[in-house]
Amino acid sequence: MEACIFCKIVKGEIPCEKIYEDEDVISFLDIGPVSKGHALVVTKEHYETLLDVPEKLEKAILNAVKKVARAQSSVLGNDGFNVLFNNKKVAGQVVPHVHAHVIPRKANDGIRFEWIPRKYPGDEMKEYGNNLRKFL
Amino acid sequence: MEACIFCKIVKGEIPCEKIYEDEDVISFLDIGPVSKGHALVVTKEHYETLLDVPEKLEKAILNAVKKVARAQSSVLGNDGFNVLFNNKKVAGQVVPHVHAHVIPRKANDGIRFEWIPRKYPGDEMKEYGNNLRKFL
Repeated sequence: MEACIFCKIVKGEIPCEKIYEDEDVISFLDIGPVSKGHALVVTKEHYETLLDVPEKLEKAILNAVKKVARAQSSVLGNDGFNVLFNNKKVAGQVVPHVHAHVIPRKANDGIRFEWIPRKYPGDEMKEYGNNLRKFL
Repeated sequence: MEACIFCKIVKGEIPCEKIYEDEDVISFLDIGPVSKGHALVVTKEHYETLLDVPEKLEKAILNAVKKVARAQSSVLGNDGFNVLFNNKKVAGQVVPHVHAHVIPRKANDGIRFEWIPRKYPGDEMKEYGNNLRKFL
């Protein structure tokens, strides 16, 4: 999948704010976060949707999601989180390479899953990355 | 967890439109579906959130999610689906017993994750259940 953005990120050909990596997956911050700290967990191998992921990777994905969520909670003090897999374009999947959104949530954060992307000012994204890496 | 609605559903003390069951999980239709066919995958044992689920159940949950999604696709002809875990009340978790929402999606279905529950008229919910069970 030479044209796939996430494959390029996995290979290091496109930079990302990576916060976790193991044999099977990587995790990095979403550049248009629904809430700050919003991370993606992405398989290293290219699969389009959850339905294409082989069984052996299912545990790897959820294990990484949990690690990331725990780290978010430690760093951000959020009280909850959403884990969302959008499968196929009609479901809001923008990059056709399977990924889990891990979205930190707080009371009255105004998020109603309308997917309005926010931005990190300046180097703040890197700071979030640095803080999160300490727990991963 | 005697007061837990999902524990009661698992035990059969509260009825549900069950579409799948194995050793570890059950799946049934959400009574307030975001889209028709919207199902939940629920662990038989009580755990509050994804973070509380033991590793051995992670694969079981995603396997069931995939089975349900495939069945939805076969029955409904949907072009995609969302898989969503809401963890804790601030993240929209209504029943504090871990569950995955499996939400069929179609082009221009108007869903923007605003969580406006719809209803099945008459026995239509049962019909959806019957159709889905054929593939599970």
